[in-house]
Order: sequence, then structure tokens, then C-alpha cells
Amino acid sequence: MADLPGIVVTGASGRMGQMLARSIAASDRARLVACIEREGHPWIGRDIGECMGGAAMGVLVTDDPLEAFAKAQGVVDFTAPAATVGFAALAAQARLVHVIGTTGLEPADLEKLEAASRHAVIVRAGNMSLGVNLLVRMTQKIAAALDEDWDVEVVEAHHRMKVDAPSGTALMLGRAAAEGRGISLEDHMDSGRHGITGARKRGDIGFSAIRGGDVVGEHDVIFAADGERVVLRHLATDRGIFARGALRAVLWGQGQKPGQYDMMDVLGL
Amino acid sequence: MADLPGIVVTGASGRMGQMLARSIAASDRARLVACIEREGHPWIGRDIGECMGGAAMGVLVTDDPLEAFAKAQGVVDFTAPAATVGFAALAAQARLVHVIGTTGLEPADLEKLEAASRHAVIVRAGNMSLGVNLLVRMTQKIAAALDEDWDVEVVEAHHRMKVDAPSGTALMLGRAAAEGRGISLEDHMDSGRHGITGARKRGDIGFSAIRGGDVVGEHDVIFAADGERVVLRHLATDRGIFARGALRAVLWGQGQKPGQYDMMDVLGL
Amino acid sequence: MADLPGIVVTGASGRMGQMLARSIAASDRARLVACIEREGHPWIGRDIGECMGGAAMGVLVTDDPLEAFAKAQGVVDFTAPAATVGFAALAAQARLVHVIGTTGLEPADLEKLEAASRHAVIVRAGNMSLGVNLLVRMTQKIAAALDEDWDVEVVEAHHRMKVDAPSGTALMLGRAAAEGRGISLEDHMDSGRHGITGARKRGDIGFSAIRGGDVVGEHDVIFAADGERVVLRHLATDRGIFARGALRAVLWGQGQKPGQYDMMDVLGL
Amino acid sequence: MADLPGIVVTGASGRMGQMLARSIAASDRARLVACIEREGHPWIGRDIGECMGGAAMGVLVTDDPLEAFAKAQGVVDFTAPAATVGFAALAAQARLVHVIGTTGLEPADLEKLEAASRHAVIVRAGNMSLGVNLLVRMTQKIAAALDEDWDVEVVEAHHRMKVDAPSGTALMLGRAAAEGRGISLEDHMDSGRHGITGARKRGDIGFSAIRGGDVVGEHDVIFAADGERVVLRHLATDRGIFARGALRAVLWGQGQKPGQYDMMDVLGL
Repeated sequence: MADLPGIVVTGASGRMGQMLARSIAASDRARLVACIEREGHPWIGRDIGECMGGAAMGVLVTDDPLEAFAKAQGVVDFTAPAATVGFAALAAQARLVHVIGTTGLEPADLEKLEAASRHAVIVRAGNMSLGVNLLVRMTQKIAAALDEDWDVEVVEAHHRMKVDAPSGTALMLGRAAAEGRGISLEDHMDSGRHGITGARKRGDIGFSAIRGGDVVGEHDVIFAADGERVVLRHLATDRGIFARGALRAVLWGQGQKPGQYDMMDVLGL
Repeated sequence: MADLPGIVVTGASGRMGQMLARSIAASDRARLVACIEREGHPWIGRDIGECMGGAAMGVLVTDDPLEAFAKAQGVVDFTAPAATVGFAALAAQARLVHVIGTTGLEPADLEKLEAASRHAVIVRAGNMSLGVNLLVRMTQKIAAALDEDWDVEVVEAHHRMKVDAPSGTALMLGRAAAEGRGISLEDHMDSGRHGITGARKRGDIGFSAIRGGDVVGEHDVIFAADGERVVLRHLATDRGIFARGALRAVLWGQGQKPGQYDMMDVLGL
Repeated sequence: MADLPGIVVTGASGRMGQMLARSIAASDRARLVACIEREGHPWIGRDIGECMGGAAMGVLVTDDPLEAFAKAQGVVDFTAPAATVGFAALAAQARLVHVIGTTGLEPADLEKLEAASRHAVIVRAGNMSLGVNLLVRMTQKIAAALDEDWDVEVVEAHHRMKVDAPSGTALMLGRAAAEGRGISLEDHMDSGRHGITGARKRGDIGFSAIRGGDVVGEHDVIFAADGERVVLRHLATDRGIFARGALRAVLWGQGQKPGQYDMMDVLGL
Repeated sequence: MADLPGIVVTGASGRMGQMLARSIAASDRARLVACIEREGHPWIGRDIGECMGGAAMGVLVTDDPLEAFAKAQGVVDFTAPAATVGFAALAAQARLVHVIGTTGLEPADLEKLEAASRHAVIVRAGNMSLGVNLLVRMTQKIAAALDEDWDVEVVEAHHRMKVDAPSGTALMLGRAAAEGRGISLEDHMDSGRHGITGARKRGDIGFSAIRGGDVVGEHDVIFAADGERVVLRHLATDRGIFARGALRAVLWGQGQKPGQYDMMDVLGL
């Protein structure tokens, strides 16, 4: 057990943080060594298992990343840009593998991650599921194989609480289609159809966003020609897949050379 | 044969007109007696079968509705509002059953149809397929049975040439859901999601429009709650279903009392 | 709190039992008063919350149904036929509402339930989700509205551990379609197509079973005619819906007259 | 016009034969030069356009393949094994490109095609649509990328007249999945589930066949893991795609070296 890589989870009280803590604690390939929350959070100093309403796990919640990182080989981080940039600097010092699922990073943030990645391994991805990353790769290849007689549409469904459209994963898929065709998504994006739209523009990539219930995440990439359609679909039914992907990334990162990586690297796609 | 009701098709050179002419000519329950096109159209005076690139059918294309209606018991009309209003007056004089698939009718047009329907039978529908009308009826019943914990979304897909969104049929379905809930669609319609939309508003009815290829028409009504979804779906793969529905309507209208009817009446739903 | 109906859960260590215990404990409309397991089970005498790996709930697991039933108004029971028949007799004595999700009951078992229902309320259903029961009802109505030009197919998907096909819910749906048409399912069932099957027999009801992953349960009822299809679909993504349905049934049963009921009664469909 | 490759269609009175004749006659990249039917067929000696109920095309139906092949550069053949073997010998003598969509060929038939392909180009495929062939290729790649935690299921839907299950295309897809995994489909095929099947066997490839209406052809390849699914889907809505694929194959074959090819070669996949 002591030889298994020790992992730290940040933002441990959030929905994703709790999922990560449970997933790593349950794994036989890694150890959960610490959980981080911001200063003043009521969970600080308590056992993470009990905080989550379950049995004790023997792992405390701390607001001191330095101390937490000192006993770890990796950190999994789904928080916010400012926190992530701070963790990246500390993780680089400690030579930890830093797996980042945080979204909304600005160019200035990315520069700081770039600097950190000169000293340590960073794996960053908009979506850590194996299936979604496979879909992204396939979308690019099929878009490259088919001409513009095949209209591309990306359709996604998410729970009623989601505040933006299209989803980040839908944009990843649309971008992959655009790359496959050698065009820029920005110039060919058709999202939010309503009213008198005119006929579909040849070469456009369309987006539709369905919202309702507690749908975890569903994505369709449709290639529609006269008389036939090819559809690539991903259905996520359990957020645990994102936690498992993050765990896989942190394990994969052990022993890699410093640098920035994504899930394609991790999955060998 | 001579006892079968004689039917006239208007706008005979259009995609729907040709479909109607073929469908009625092939039926053993009706006779095609004339086809109408506007004055000056190159098909005037020629055999409709030959105009469509096939064998002669023994039926001529004419620009004189009066003459055509004189030998008929019904007329099927998928044209434009101005033409339809004119046909309605002539059909009422001749006591013909007037089946109308024309869309975009304004209140002033509808008043004229109302006047015509005092003397003759008018059947008017946004979509003449049996399946769609069944879906509309079910949507209303399910919306009445479920509370607002079930988010309603209408998703439709059509060919790349369609110029408006949502489709008329999607609006029919959304209106049926609103009626079932006792609310107005106008106050609860959420169409064209894009950007920072905020969380879904409870009670809203969402619309998404997919465009591509030569898709005839697909409609989903999704009721999404926590942990489960009910979906009502209609797939149209052949425009012939609309022609068959129109033929069914014109046959049903024989012997009915003057008045305005819709496909629910025809189908006994 | 003391006024809320007290509920007992049987088979508390099973997947469904745990789900029920959690769901009832979390409800503000009922109290969990006891959990039952068979004699000799290691959980006997311990707190159910701790047994499930969480915080204590103040409710013990017992092997004595009599004692448990004495302090309750209802019992929710997803066990096996022999156990269910025994619980029914005891629940009838204690005048408890007995909600039964047990499957595989034989005619002899059903007779004993019939006897018990002369003294107490029994609610029994093959599937306790609101959505599925709605689908069953709609399937019957649509099958009655459409003739045999519309081929009926029931397609279901479940997790890889499921040992039988078609699912009980698929059979419920097929039976509803048969009733709508006024035929017997047994004479018209076409399940397990493989090899040279010949053309589809008019009026048959087809079944397909997809197995894979951890799919909770998906059912499609397809009505397929020339040129169009109507599909009724139910997706279950969280077993919690069955627990919520059972809780709704036990609450509904309070104050009803003795007798046997199903979810259609509970849901007012 | 005279420079366009001349194409012969066999089995011209069949549904596929008529589709091919229309498609080639309408193309601006090929000429329809003859249609073949068996001796004694009522269409022999008549114009193919008129036989199909349309305008004359200036192309006769003949029962003499030698004469027909003499004026052609290619032949498209969706008939039966015995006929196809005979056409292959004659096409090889005449150095025609022979595009074969015939199914049910036995090993003895395949040997004769092999012999013919030493002298001329043969393109043979179970399904000539671009989309399906793309799906086959992707299925193989994804099956190679994913381990057996991902259960593979192939689901297909076809019209009510189809007499066998699974479809030839479903078997192509299943075979591609098996190849990707390095296993034999025969040892891992699970088709026709019904009754007490036991839990799904790890590594099996499942098949389901839906039959109804006039569905042209729909195929899903499902990869189902815990918490997520990847689905590859092909929808054919117009048989014209098979005719266009065959035309593309016969044009591609012009100038190729003698040998046997498939649609992957034609499409450059």
C-alpha cells in the first residue's frame, strides 16, 4: 500500500471533489493522502469520509497545500482558474503530477501553467472520459474523410442547471470537426437557430443544446448527407467516469517528462 | 371507377403537388380529374404524367379552377395563402371538400376560410401525417399528467433547405404541451439557446432545431425528470405520408356537414 | 415527525433495499422505522446507516418482522416470492400497506396475496417508475388507435448482469400493445430473431434485448408503418426512481380500502 | 457524352436494378448502355425507361450479356450467386470492371471470382454506401482502442420484408469489431437473446434485429462500459446511396490493375 502513489484532491467539498475523493480512496492503484479546501471552510481539520456523510477514511481536510503536496506524488484539481494557477506553482516545486479539469482558464492563466510545466507534468483536459476523447479523435478523422456534402451538427443534452450553451465538450467536438476539414470553427459556427434562419450554409457546423432533468451529458456528432447519416454518440450516465479518467491521468503522469499533456496522450489515442 | 370521388390537385408542378398527383392517380379510392397551375406555366394544357417525366395519365394541367372544380368532389391544396383563399371561395361555390396544407395563413386569410366553410367542408392541418397528429394528442395528455418536475423539450431535425426554426410541427407539439399544462406557449418558449443562458427556467418548453442532409422530418418531445425520461418521437421518412393523409382527409370530408375540421377529426383521435 | 407514516424496508442489504432505506430516511413525508434481513445475516442488530458505510440513522436491522411491523404503517418489499408471501400475511394482520416489487410470483403466490388483500392494502407493480407506467398506458392507447399496417417492436437495453430477456417491463409494454389491439401476446410474440426468419408476420409484436455496461433500463415501443414511425421511449438513469415510486405507493395506500392495486391506481392514470 | 464510360446493369427489373438504371442514366459521369434480364422476361427487347413506367431512355433490355458487354466499360450487378459467377467470366473476357453487390456467395463462387479477377477489375462489397464503409472502419479502430470492459452490441433495423437476421451489414460491423479485438466473431457471437440467457459473457459481441415498416437500414454499434457509452450509428434513408456507391465503384475501377477490391479501396479509407 505504501508504494502506491499518494494523491491529493483539491476543492474536496464540491460535487466533483467528493467524487474524486471517493474514487481514489476506493482504488487499489493509488492512495488518497490529503484533501484541500479553502481557508475557513467548515470541513478543515476533519476526516473527509465523515464530512461526506460516510465512514471515516483516515484522511484529513486541510487548507495548507504545501503540507499536503509534501507527502504526495500527484494532485487532481477541478477548481477555479485562480486556485489552479496557484496549485500549479506549488505542484511544480514539489514535482507532482498536476491533473487539471478546471475550465474557463484565460490566456494569462495558461502562460503560468506553461511555466509550471517546465518543471513538472501537467495533464489538462476539458473532459476526462475515455469515451469523449475517443469521440473527439474520431470526429476529426471522419470530418477529414467526408466532404461538405455531409452537413455536420453537434447536439448535446445536459441537466437543467447548466448555465451555458453549447457545452465545452460540444465545442471540443465542433473544433475537431473543423480541424478535420481544415477550417476555423469560429467562421463556421451556427448555434442557437431560431426564427427565419434561411437555408443552412454549406460547410457550417451547427450546434443544438437540450436542457432538462439531471442528464449527466450526451453528445451527438451528426454527419448528414442525401440519403444517409453517420452519427457518433457519447452518453455519460455517471460522473464517476470523469473521476476514473482523472485517476488514470495522474497514474499515467508518473515517470513522464515535464510538459503539458492532454487525455489523448494519456489514452494513447 | 366513375363512382369514385374526383379530386383536383393545385400547385401541381411543386414537389408536394407532384406527390399528390401521383398518390391520387395510384389510389383505388379516388380519381385524379384535373391539375391546376398558375396562368402561363409551361405545363398548362399538357398531360400531368408526361410533365412529371413518366407515362401519360390522361389528366391535363389547367389554369382554370372553375372548369376543374366542376367535375370534382374535392380539391387538395398545398400552395400559398393568396391562392388558397381564392380556391376556398370557388370550392365553396362548387360544394367541394377543400383540404388545405398551405402554411403561413394570416388572420385575414383565416376569416375568409371561415366564411367559405359555412357552405362547404374545409379540412386544414399543419401536418397531415397520422403519426404526427397522434403525437400531438399524446403530448397534450402526458403534459397534463406530469407536473413541472418534468422539463419539456421539443427537438426537431429537417433537411438543409428549411428556412425557419422551429418547424411548424414542433410548434404544434409545443403548443399541445402548453395546453396540457394549462399555460401559454408564448410565455414559456425557450428557443435558440446560445451563450450564457442561465439555468433552465422551471416550466419552460425548450426547442432545438437540427438541420442537415435531406431529412424529411423528425420530432422528439422529451419529458425529463430526475432519474428518468419519457420521449415521444415521430420519424417521417417519405413525403408520401402527407399525400396519403391529404387523400384520407378529402375522402373523409365527403358527406360531412359544412365547417372547418382538422386531422384530429379525420383520424377520430 | 412522529405523525409521518412509519415505513419498514425488507431485504435491506440488497441493492434495492439500500436504495429504499436511503430514500425513505431522506424523505420528509415518511419515517424509516425498521429494516428487515433474514435470520443470521451479519447486519442484524446493527444500525442500517452504518451497515451501508455511512453515518448512523438510528434505525436497526432486525430479523423479526412482527416486531418491525408493530410500529409501522407500511412496508416496502423487493425480495423473493417465498419471503413476500410470508410478509403479506403478517402485513395483513397488522393492517399495513404492503408495496410489492418482487418479481417471479407464481399463481399459488398470487392466491395468497389475494387472500391477504382482503384485509389490507397491497400495491404490486413490475416497475414502479412513473414514466414506465405512463408508457404502458400510452402504448395500449396507441395500439388501439393504429391498425396492423403499423408493426410493433419493443426494444430494451439493460446492464450486462441481467439474466433474462425480454425484461419484465418489455413484456408489460408488449402486453399493453396486445391488449390495445385485442389480441393475445402469447400468440403474436416474436422474440430472439436469428437466422432465416422469413418476412415479418403481420400483427406480430417483436422484442429485442440489448445488454451491456451498467445501463439501468431503456425501453422503446416502435410503431413502424410505411414512410413514418412513432416511438415511445423511456430511459431510467437512476434506480432512485423505483424507490421514489415505492414511497409514493406506500403513502398513497394510507387510507385506501383493502384490496390489490397497481401503479396505475397510485398515479391516477 | 460518347467519352463517358458505358455501363451495363444486370437484373434490371428488380428494385435495385431499376434504381441503378435510373441513377446511371441521370449521371453526367457515365452512360447507361444496356440492361440485362433473364431469357423470357417480359421486358426483353423493350426500352428500360418505359418498362419502369417513365419516359423512354433509348436503352433496351436484353438477355444477351455478350452483346451488352461489347459496348461497355463496366457492369453493375446485384443479382444472385449463379448469375454473378457467369457475368464475372464474361466481364473478365471483355475486360470490364465488374461491380458486385450480390450476397450469399459460397466459397466455390468466390474461387471463380478470384479466377476472373486475374484478368479484370472486380469490386465486391456487402454494402456500397460511403457511410457504412466508414462505420466499418471506425468500428475496427475503436474496438482495438477499447478493452473488454466495453461490451459491444450491434443493433440493426430493417423493413418488414427482410427474411434474415442479423443483416449482412450488421455481420460486417460485428466482424470489424472482432478483428479490432483480435478475436473470431464466430466464437463470440451472441444473437437472438430470448429466455433465461444468464449474464452477458465478457468479450461477446451481441446482435439485435428490429423489423418493421419500410425502414431502409439502420445500424448501431454500441460500446457500453460502466458509466458511459460510445455509439456509432448509420442511417440509410434512400436506396439511392447504394446505387451512387456502385457508380462510384465502377468509375474508380477504370484504369485500375486487375484484381479484387472492396469499397474501402474505392473510398480510400
